[in-house]
Amino acid sequence: MSEFKKHCWHDVIDSDTREIYQPYERVTFIGKKPALLLIDLYNLVYEGGSLPVKVVVKNHPSSCGVHAWDAVEPTKQLISLARCRDIPLIYSTQVTNHLEATNRVRNVVLDNSYDIHEAFRPEPDDLIIRKERASCFFGTPLIAYLTKMGIDSLIICGESTSGCVRATAVDAHSYGFHSVIAEECTFDRSLISHKVSLFDLHHKYADVMSLDEVKAHLDLRMVEF
Amino acid sequence: MSEFKKHCWHDVIDSDTREIYQPYERVTFIGKKPALLLIDLYNLVYEGGSLPVKVVVKNHPSSCGVHAWDAVEPTKQLISLARCRDIPLIYSTQVTNHLEATNRVRNVVLDNSYDIHEAFRPEPDDLIIRKERASCFFGTPLIAYLTKMGIDSLIICGESTSGCVRATAVDAHSYGFHSVIAEECTFDRSLISHKVSLFDLHHKYADVMSLDEVKAHLDLRMVEF
Amino acid sequence: MSEFKKHCWHDVIDSDTREIYQPYERVTFIGKKPALLLIDLYNLVYEGGSLPVKVVVKNHPSSCGVHAWDAVEPTKQLISLARCRDIPLIYSTQVTNHLEATNRVRNVVLDNSYDIHEAFRPEPDDLIIRKERASCFFGTPLIAYLTKMGIDSLIICGESTSGCVRATAVDAHSYGFHSVIAEECTFDRSLISHKVSLFDLHHKYADVMSLDEVKAHLDLRMVEF
Amino acid sequence: MSEFKKHCWHDVIDSDTREIYQPYERVTFIGKKPALLLIDLYNLVYEGGSLPVKVVVKNHPSSCGVHAWDAVEPTKQLISLARCRDIPLIYSTQVTNHLEATNRVRNVVLDNSYDIHEAFRPEPDDLIIRKERASCFFGTPLIAYLTKMGIDSLIICGESTSGCVRATAVDAHSYGFHSVIAEECTFDRSLISHKVSLFDLHHKYADVMSLDEVKAHLDLRMVEF
Repeated sequence: MSEFKKHCWHDVIDSDTREIYQPYERVTFIGKKPALLLIDLYNLVYEGGSLPVKVVVKNHPSSCGVHAWDAVEPTKQLISLARCRDIPLIYSTQVTNHLEATNRVRNVVLDNSYDIHEAFRPEPDDLIIRKERASCFFGTPLIAYLTKMGIDSLIICGESTSGCVRATAVDAHSYGFHSVIAEECTFDRSLISHKVSLFDLHHKYADVMSLDEVKAHLDLRMVEF
Repeated sequence: MSEFKKHCWHDVIDSDTREIYQPYERVTFIGKKPALLLIDLYNLVYEGGSLPVKVVVKNHPSSCGVHAWDAVEPTKQLISLARCRDIPLIYSTQVTNHLEATNRVRNVVLDNSYDIHEAFRPEPDDLIIRKERASCFFGTPLIAYLTKMGIDSLIICGESTSGCVRATAVDAHSYGFHSVIAEECTFDRSLISHKVSLFDLHHKYADVMSLDEVKAHLDLRMVEF
Repeated sequence: MSEFKKHCWHDVIDSDTREIYQPYERVTFIGKKPALLLIDLYNLVYEGGSLPVKVVVKNHPSSCGVHAWDAVEPTKQLISLARCRDIPLIYSTQVTNHLEATNRVRNVVLDNSYDIHEAFRPEPDDLIIRKERASCFFGTPLIAYLTKMGIDSLIICGESTSGCVRATAVDAHSYGFHSVIAEECTFDRSLISHKVSLFDLHHKYADVMSLDEVKAHLDLRMVEF
Repeated sequence: MSEFKKHCWHDVIDSDTREIYQPYERVTFIGKKPALLLIDLYNLVYEGGSLPVKVVVKNHPSSCGVHAWDAVEPTKQLISLARCRDIPLIYSTQVTNHLEATNRVRNVVLDNSYDIHEAFRPEPDDLIIRKERASCFFGTPLIAYLTKMGIDSLIICGESTSGCVRATAVDAHSYGFHSVIAEECTFDRSLISHKVSLFDLHHKYADVMSLDEVKAHLDLRMVEF
């Protein structure tokens, strides 16, 4: 099987659909000036620990349980790959108190649910995008930062695959950016939604790559440039 | 089974996932001032006739084959429901010649691939949105028309479910509109992508309804208002 | 002179230009469901007190001096008009620390430069939009709130006329909203920029009204609706 | 007087305002990868010939008369400067028939009012943006093209200074692009609006340059890169 086809969705896509999508097969790549976009890796998603989602949601309705925790190590590796190569890091998180009245500061102090998880702690120069909708582009100045930084492509990870990751990758394509999605660093509460969203994204809007492929492409770039 | 759960995706969503998404169950509705948005019902999609997609794509790579043709009658009924109730119709289609140089007019005359299919011919007062990206909102003045018309919700049909329909429904949610997706009037080349996209959309961004449900909600509105 | 022409710009627009713009004369109005948008009425703008701008900017480069202070009373009246009529209030302010790293909370506590001035203190249900660009629409979810609230028009005040007020009024027009600008409640550091921007806006994008006109229109609406 | 201050607005900006804006003085520049954006240079604007606006508008309400014609030669020089240096050209024009019903093609053939004037005829590879609002960014895919082309800055000319040129330059700044406005290649029907808009833009959003300055900067770039 070609590299293009070796992905987690293989068991849920039947042979007819694979045949229909055959013409999309192509050479994948990372752009010349990528940024790493880490979507919604906030504390809420890890609540309840590394247990099946069905179990953790009983007490933690926003948790992705085992899927979140399985992605911790690969995501740390991806962050490390990016930091070593001076690839800028952009984190997103949700804005919780949308009316942001005068009691905003106190709320923030008391509640760290939407703080980035400590495994991926942002550094002072990283950009943090606070959003109220699924896509990191909607209702945020993300496009302005990308333009000013001369970014031409995104390496995307985080959650949920079928929610904020997909919405952001579709918008990135619309805005003219090439996107790569790091497969092991992306997760969802629903496995079928995760797999089929990655399948859809890979064929229409982005290059889904394993962490090893991302690393190989980045290493190749260091030789070439 | 509740009305909320009776949908085409039932055979591909396992019981664990159904349990995880249980809390999303809610009362569905159509807004007070909806528009009907018909996405990408252009000739290319119907090429090769009502045959399996796997067959038609050999000569017509953009065709949705039998799925497109199966949706013709329900879509005509949906259009009729809207016209009877003075619900505005908005069609989208793709712009083909993105550079639109001086030879644009000739191209348009010679090529009707992106004209709306004759089964759904727009009337002079209908709005036609020409887009270059998946979402009907991106790079188009759609939001301005919706604001000026006082629209608060969309009834969405067309194709593809996992492409332009999904991207548009997610954007509609971001912009603050309530959306309803007419199940039988929406289609895709990949059945698994169709079903899982409708499942995702129904739980996160929109109310997926059968044509009968849409009709019942519209009839109810006529009594109430 | 007609109501349409009685405005602060009269001394800087010559008769030729007035003649050229004659065809723009029209009946002005406030929409059916307006919101009051108060742009950038934060502390920085009032620094140094009610002195000529030329004087205050020596120590307070962001202050609008006397122009800011002259607008305080009319703006309080405008707010009162809106609150009496249940017209929603939306405030904007600038985001200062665009990287919003982990020390964000402390910064906010220590620095109140971009807090709304105490004369116009927001109430808990008011919406506050935090922006990084001139227009209140750019990089913010303002459009989503307006759609969800069913707003069809804006009454705009604040500063600066030639900066954030103008950028916001032009965007409001693009998005399909009718805008009214309250003349005495709008200000700038440059008088010529203030006057010519109001002239341009009145003819192309918005209805510039005196506070008395705004009040008269709102009173009329109470009778009609 | 410094290069920064030598501009057409000098006679309408008083000494107080000049003093207030003194701190904005800075070194101007063109970015590394600019595009030339030619705004709304369509036939309507030239109707009635090179006569005072007050005269031509009697029969041609959209004409800029002598101001449009005075800009023809400098604009041709600017286009030539860009073509020699492989700087991409992007034209904008208005969409006239916003509903674009089935009779669209015939309308386009019969009416050339919004075709680009023959003095600046686009070449086949030039991009043409069709817009319905003032800004070239609003409701168009312009941002996607700029991202895909790796553009980091715009050289802007066309009309009207206080309308589409200003709205586009403000949006360009919001999106993160550096903008240069070619003074002699920009025009308006109202001279005071033209001058004060250029003054505002120069200090807040863009670098206004004479054609000679634009040429000098472009020549310098050829040496440097």
